[in-house]
Amino acid sequence: MACTNNEILETFEAALAQLRVPEEPELLYMPIIYSMSGGGKRLRPVLLLLTTEAFGGSIEEAMSAALAVEIFHNFTLLHDDIMDNADVRRGKPSVYAKWGGNVALLSGDAMLISAYKYLARISSDVLPRVMNIFTDMALEVCEGQQYDMDFETISKVSVEEYMQMIERKTSALLSGSAMIGATMAGALEEDVKKIYRFATELGLAFQLQDDVLDSYGDTALGKKIGGDILEGKKTYLMVQALNRASAEEREVLCTTHRRTDISDAEKISIIKELYDRLDVKRIAEQQIELRFERALAVLDTLSIGGERAATLVEFARNLMGRKK
Amino acid sequence: MACTNNEILETFEAALAQLRVPEEPELLYMPIIYSMSGGGKRLRPVLLLLTTEAFGGSIEEAMSAALAVEIFHNFTLLHDDIMDNADVRRGKPSVYAKWGGNVALLSGDAMLISAYKYLARISSDVLPRVMNIFTDMALEVCEGQQYDMDFETISKVSVEEYMQMIERKTSALLSGSAMIGATMAGALEEDVKKIYRFATELGLAFQLQDDVLDSYGDTALGKKIGGDILEGKKTYLMVQALNRASAEEREVLCTTHRRTDISDAEKISIIKELYDRLDVKRIAEQQIELRFERALAVLDTLSIGGERAATLVEFARNLMGRKK
Repeated sequence: MACTNNEILETFEAALAQLRVPEEPELLYMPIIYSMSGGGKRLRPVLLLLTTEAFGGSIEEAMSAALAVEIFHNFTLLHDDIMDNADVRRGKPSVYAKWGGNVALLSGDAMLISAYKYLARISSDVLPRVMNIFTDMALEVCEGQQYDMDFETISKVSVEEYMQMIERKTSALLSGSAMIGATMAGALEEDVKKIYRFATELGLAFQLQDDVLDSYGDTALGKKIGGDILEGKKTYLMVQALNRASAEEREVLCTTHRRTDISDAEKISIIKELYDRLDVKRIAEQQIELRFERALAVLDTLSIGGERAATLVEFARNLMGRKK
Repeated sequence: MACTNNEILETFEAALAQLRVPEEPELLYMPIIYSMSGGGKRLRPVLLLLTTEAFGGSIEEAMSAALAVEIFHNFTLLHDDIMDNADVRRGKPSVYAKWGGNVALLSGDAMLISAYKYLARISSDVLPRVMNIFTDMALEVCEGQQYDMDFETISKVSVEEYMQMIERKTSALLSGSAMIGATMAGALEEDVKKIYRFATELGLAFQLQDDVLDSYGDTALGKKIGGDILEGKKTYLMVQALNRASAEEREVLCTTHRRTDISDAEKISIIKELYDRLDVKRIAEQQIELRFERALAVLDTLSIGGERAATLVEFARNLMGRKK
């Protein structure tokens, strides 16, 4: 009987609670524990473990790889917060805000190295292949972050470029995790490729939904709405809008967040009005639906049979906040 | 017939010249090429390759591990320059100065990951062991950097603490490289341990000599003398001096570099006069001699016989700038 998503999460959290780091130097290792115990949805290790189980692999054997991807994910957050000058992470002070840039930098380095330390513990017969997947994935995440920063200073970003950026920045870590899980279970090469496509499409749907929710989310959930708009961030909505706007509208899209004569609420309202006029929310929702359906469709084609992938369907639905 | 140090260096440089990175995103990958082609003595890969050859291993097979340690070394320079706010590296603008902190940070991350990418190419039967050596070494380097930064704000650092710091910051990368070279050649476990001791002692001698040369070096070589003194850096000389000084002398040692009423030359002269009075240069030179002799003595005890280690003796002498 396959484990549910929640059971896998609990198993992973139990393993994570056993994570030990040296006591000294304190400023190198304390931020690692602070960061790793700061919550988070553990999406990547859960996906890795679910995938390995779906292909008949052992959760116990894959656990150190699951720890590796979660440590890697948290490493990216430490360094992203330096680059983005971000003071808050998961409702708490970021490592960057709490200890400063140098500590976040060096502790982050130690986390990246520690991720490989855990990776090195997996069975030696799959280690070379898993290391290659992990390393390619890690480089893609760096590429995604660089493109994201590049986009801040480029006036014209195409929708295709945007999709390529989030495929690296968001999907790569999900697809890499899923591929590692499948590889560790000895899955067929063609199934590993399908799992890659499943997680890539799902990651795109997830990121686009995140972009939409930042502007159109439910304020009742306590989430601040419009943060991306106020930062002038090039989200999917903004990129689509810029590509569909008249010269005049483009000017408004580009400059409103910098205005000092109006309130934040007014800025958000101006931009969302333009989004509505340019119909970009609907376009985004269509794209989310398309990607999500594609992701699920891939699972039906796995050689192990669709029913073995039921927990992956559950994962995908949970990720998108869908009941069915 | 074993290769000379110079032949090994040439072979390594030829392999390094073949290093390719993706063209885009440019700001992620260009700094890697800039940094890797910026010269440097290639000490760590040369030591790795010499060691593997001494134990009968193949230089060709060890080459990707040699690239990995050199890429790792350059990664540490990129990130150290951010932390130290350093604008110049090997006589050229540092990546940090040329492209800014975010680029140096993210490019550095990509370099660290790329180091593992090359490491993953070695034979799978030694990969797990080599990955563990590499990863432990990498964490030690981070620890050394953190202790070094900690020392800046601690008034009292013992000589023992200083030696432990440089063992991590400087020796670990040399000893790790040598151990990887030996391990890849299938050396006996006891020989790997001895090679570790050889490179550790040599690294300590090298770092202490570096500390001495910064204050007492030959200005004819174009090196700026007294940089450490002007920065108020806790070098071996300073740590020894602080531990031997009277309360009054300690005050002078700690505060002179911050004075604004005297010239740099006067500051250097005041501190060096104190160094001379406290006899710390002689103590440092004794320690260098002791560590260097210990390093060479270990080589005589290798199971492969001392003559097989002749190129390692040559390496040690070159490193310390000695003819015999």
